Amino acid sequence: MPFRFEILKTDPTTKARAGLLHTPHGVIETPVFMPVGTLGSVKGMTQDALEELGAQIILGNTYHLYLRPGHELIRDLGGLHKFISWPRAILTDSGGFQVFSLSKLRKIEEQGVTFRSHLDGSAHFFSPESTVDIQNALGSDIQMQLDECTPYPVSHEAARKSMELSVRWAARAKNAWLTTPDNPSTLFPIVQGSMFADLRQESAERLVELDLPGYAIGGLSVGEPRPLTFDMVAATEPHLPPEKPRYVMGVGMPEEIPEYVAQGVDMMDCVLPTRNARNGMLFTSAGRMHIGNARYARDQKPPDEKCACSVCRRYTRAYLRHLFHSGEMLAGVLNTIHNLFFYLDGMRRMRGAILAGEFSRYRNEISHRDTENTEENKNT
Amino acid sequence: MPFRFEILKTDPTTKARAGLLHTPHGVIETPVFMPVGTLGSVKGMTQDALEELGAQIILGNTYHLYLRPGHELIRDLGGLHKFISWPRAILTDSGGFQVFSLSKLRKIEEQGVTFRSHLDGSAHFFSPESTVDIQNALGSDIQMQLDECTPYPVSHEAARKSMELSVRWAARAKNAWLTTPDNPSTLFPIVQGSMFADLRQESAERLVELDLPGYAIGGLSVGEPRPLTFDMVAATEPHLPPEKPRYVMGVGMPEEIPEYVAQGVDMMDCVLPTRNARNGMLFTSAGRMHIGNARYARDQKPPDEKCACSVCRRYTRAYLRHLFHSGEMLAGVLNTIHNLFFYLDGMRRMRGAILAGEFSRYRNEISHRDTENTEENKNT
Repeated sequence: MPFRFEILKTDPTTKARAGLLHTPHGVIETPVFMPVGTLGSVKGMTQDALEELGAQIILGNTYHLYLRPGHELIRDLGGLHKFISWPRAILTDSGGFQVFSLSKLRKIEEQGVTFRSHLDGSAHFFSPESTVDIQNALGSDIQMQLDECTPYPVSHEAARKSMELSVRWAARAKNAWLTTPDNPSTLFPIVQGSMFADLRQESAERLVELDLPGYAIGGLSVGEPRPLTFDMVAATEPHLPPEKPRYVMGVGMPEEIPEYVAQGVDMMDCVLPTRNARNGMLFTSAGRMHIGNARYARDQKPPDEKCACSVCRRYTRAYLRHLFHSGEMLAGVLNTIHNLFFYLDGMRRMRGAILAGEFSRYRNEISHRDTENTEENKNT
Repeated sequence: MPFRFEILKTDPTTKARAGLLHTPHGVIETPVFMPVGTLGSVKGMTQDALEELGAQIILGNTYHLYLRPGHELIRDLGGLHKFISWPRAILTDSGGFQVFSLSKLRKIEEQGVTFRSHLDGSAHFFSPESTVDIQNALGSDIQMQLDECTPYPVSHEAARKSMELSVRWAARAKNAWLTTPDNPSTLFPIVQGSMFADLRQESAERLVELDLPGYAIGGLSVGEPRPLTFDMVAATEPHLPPEKPRYVMGVGMPEEIPEYVAQGVDMMDCVLPTRNARNGMLFTSAGRMHIGNARYARDQKPPDEKCACSVCRRYTRAYLRHLFHSGEMLAGVLNTIHNLFFYLDGMRRMRGAILAGEFSRYRNEISHRDTENTEENKNT
């Protein structure tokens, strides 16, 4: 199997670790943040620009690609890597999250979920088996099981019922995945259990019995207070095999990333750097800034004075503010380049700190950054 | 004066010439096509990408930049080159065309034009003197006089009246321009006269008396049949000084460019490559193609099989079709890169042909290209 996870160093005082994730499309340095490429494009970014940023793996959304342009078309054209001209690794989700957040009239049964497309209202059905088939067609390096995304808040009883369905679906996904001999695509099951530590533990233990190559923690960042998110990761982690990669789905803010890593998390993804960029929000070493703010109209400093990205090396806040204010496409493009650099560069620094045995110092620095409303206080 | 035009070679059988236009921000190889950067950004293009394409000069629109972010802000921040981080040359129009095409309730008088902003309805006034002041504030390398854009069609009498106003405004613009000693920005007047050869001749002759460093031909591509456009350029050219650059404003389609050059035109600009890109229309060596067409859904060829641009080297028609169909930002970005490369590369080839004494052969090749509806006939 080309898929292999190698831990190079574990932090002596936390659970942070630095590793290498070997995939059919290259080696990924972990901990890793994965930019989201919903429809086969990280919005506003060329693949050249993504490579320059050092992205080693991006996400694709099975729900979106299944609807448009269709997984069969992508398979016929040689798979997602070839279709989008991305030679590095790709992780695909199972589509479950989008079925529960985007589509209408969904109906969950033991067999799977019936839903209507958010595009044209047409009826579709996803099962644990069919989403493996779709992801096999896409040819992603890492695929996810179909799971039920438990809403929040929810009762313990409802959370148990939902978690147990996801565990049964994981077993079925594994069987479907095994029907392709030497499947180059690796399958991760997803730990659920809402905000109940006992359910998280039970979900993890039952999924570990399936002995799959990696484990995701899902159902977080769904509206709960952030300390609870960290608690749930902490409640899950001891029950996952230490030698396998752990992926927390859909997180997080830059200052939260080291907290997940401190809990032994190796992989994360989030739309924050890309979506917020399009809305004019920049992540910087001095905190978040909304570039549309009038205070930047004559500000000739780079967006982040400590940043070495191609945007901060060339453009001023005044220009970015003008682009955003004028609705120019370039606003989204440049803001996205900066935000993704900020995330990916942060990951590289953090990984270096783990390897150098200095993770705790790094984490402490990040946690003492002012992150909120700094434009009100400092950037004047 | 840093502004200087140098003719390197004149075609023996047409009026085409290859030259060098020396400006305070670099030397421009002519004939040149200038990408349009309305609001200080060529839509969807980073400045890095524009440099990679070999763009030596871009346009800025005085009307738009005056309204947003304002010429005084740009002057205070060091001028347009610094504001947008573009070290190469910039040409600005006078805003006249936008006043006549975008704004409401405009009122033309001898003194100038009163108009309302298309953004917020606020009242503004442009005079030949104020638009020189604004363009001085922007610091463009080449600025244009304020002219009245004569509507089409129009009577001979109305065209004469309008042309004469533009000529008087040119003289006032020159006087305003001369009040800045050693003004690094060069002023071009604009020949008008609608579709009347006698008025074009009279306009040219009266403007030549002003002895300015270059001459524009305006009021074309306003809805008239294309042969008439060429006739008007042909009617104007003999009355312009051969040693000075000639700029035909707002043209043209790729197959028309050599026709203007054959008439002795050195400079052109047009929104076609950029605007059409955003609408999914690609210019290729095999003609125009609408990338959204269903026939491209599974087409793994590059957009243009003879093109060496970064898009054609990396992506397929199927992927570009998917991006366009899905409304992804990357569709506009990639289509724009391709179309601008197609224009700029075409200019480089044409200039090489002039220098090699092979312009007529080049022109003949371009004119025999199928340009219309090729996707219906050939790209299958």
